[in-house]
Amino acid sequence: MTDTITLEKLDERGRNLVFTGARTSNTFAPTPVSDEELRDIWELTRWTPTMANTQPLRVVFVRTPEGKERLLRGMAEGNVAKTESAPVTAIVAYDKSWHEQIPTVFPIRPEMRDYFEADEDARHGAGSFSAGLQAGAFILAIRAAGLAAGPMGGYDKETIDKEFFSDSNWTTLMVVNIGHPGENPWFDRLPRVDAETAVAWA
Amino acid sequence: MTDTITLEKLDERGRNLVFTGARTSNTFAPTPVSDEELRDIWELTRWTPTMANTQPLRVVFVRTPEGKERLLRGMAEGNVAKTESAPVTAIVAYDKSWHEQIPTVFPIRPEMRDYFEADEDARHGAGSFSAGLQAGAFILAIRAAGLAAGPMGGYDKETIDKEFFSDSNWTTLMVVNIGHPGENPWFDRLPRVDAETAVAWA
Repeated sequence: MTDTITLEKLDERGRNLVFTGARTSNTFAPTPVSDEELRDIWELTRWTPTMANTQPLRVVFVRTPEGKERLLRGMAEGNVAKTESAPVTAIVAYDKSWHEQIPTVFPIRPEMRDYFEADEDARHGAGSFSAGLQAGAFILAIRAAGLAAGPMGGYDKETIDKEFFSDSNWTTLMVVNIGHPGENPWFDRLPRVDAETAVAWA
Repeated sequence: MTDTITLEKLDERGRNLVFTGARTSNTFAPTPVSDEELRDIWELTRWTPTMANTQPLRVVFVRTPEGKERLLRGMAEGNVAKTESAPVTAIVAYDKSWHEQIPTVFPIRPEMRDYFEADEDARHGAGSFSAGLQAGAFILAIRAAGLAAGPMGGYDKETIDKEFFSDSNWTTLMVVNIGHPGENPWFDRLPRVDAETAVAWA
């Protein structure tokens, strides 16, 4: 981390690793993932931007047999085998009380805390949007840390929240397997929306 | 883009450029940004993952004086000068009718289109979440393309939607200045939530 950076294009290897060549992994090798590697994923994620620096994202790295067993209670049937095979599965959550941090993380406008305290809709909207930005960065950070990510939307949110967040204000956004690819890890690549559909010019 | 990739850590230069050293730019130099550079940002973004490959994100690259004038009508006062100075400003939006694409982008379960057609809350929840993941990747893609990003939340959504999306189902999520940093481009770095607060282990 430096205070002034020189802008330049990410090289081909980096583009491929983080953006264009990386794939969602559906099987995992038994190769372990260290806590140090997981901390590195967080270190990369935490510097990426959020609205007013609010950083609502929270992560639970599940890697013990007991933790995995609790998590599997909430996974959709089609996601059980891959979640069992991954050395680590991250529950990507967000803190519904994220606004309590505002005086610390955005000291230039501490009164924003009170605004979001009073307006639950605004609080949920702003919090889930910034958490989404961070969740997108988190997936790319897994790849930048040299690991394969397998993000999943098929789970029962209520069950996972009850298992892991009954004594906190965190709530589940996404579940992501993390590890090294196993046998036949990738599905065929699905079509992307083309630029004619997704990009406009003004 | 290759079909099988070798996992490895992103090198220090890449980490710094995309994650740890990059900063939100608040002033911009007059150095132009080419349409080719903007297409490259989209090319990087579009391969990043979304729920069931649904890709709801849409982008308008605003770089003509007329386009900028319309956009400025919706920007908060504190964001006007920087938006004027940026050679390009992206309106990052999402298509509220994203589910119409399901039979094309997720051909293994075309019936998901009908489920999301019938349930507006589920449609909005899933669409805005996947768009958030893509928006997070979009910011990092700007950096990977060798440019500085200045994401902003201070704008009037209704005004921008009316100016740009009155004949479509797109709706504004975020506005991002794009270019090369000008004079004194960075604010002091704001504190990040520490790992003790944001990361748990199970």
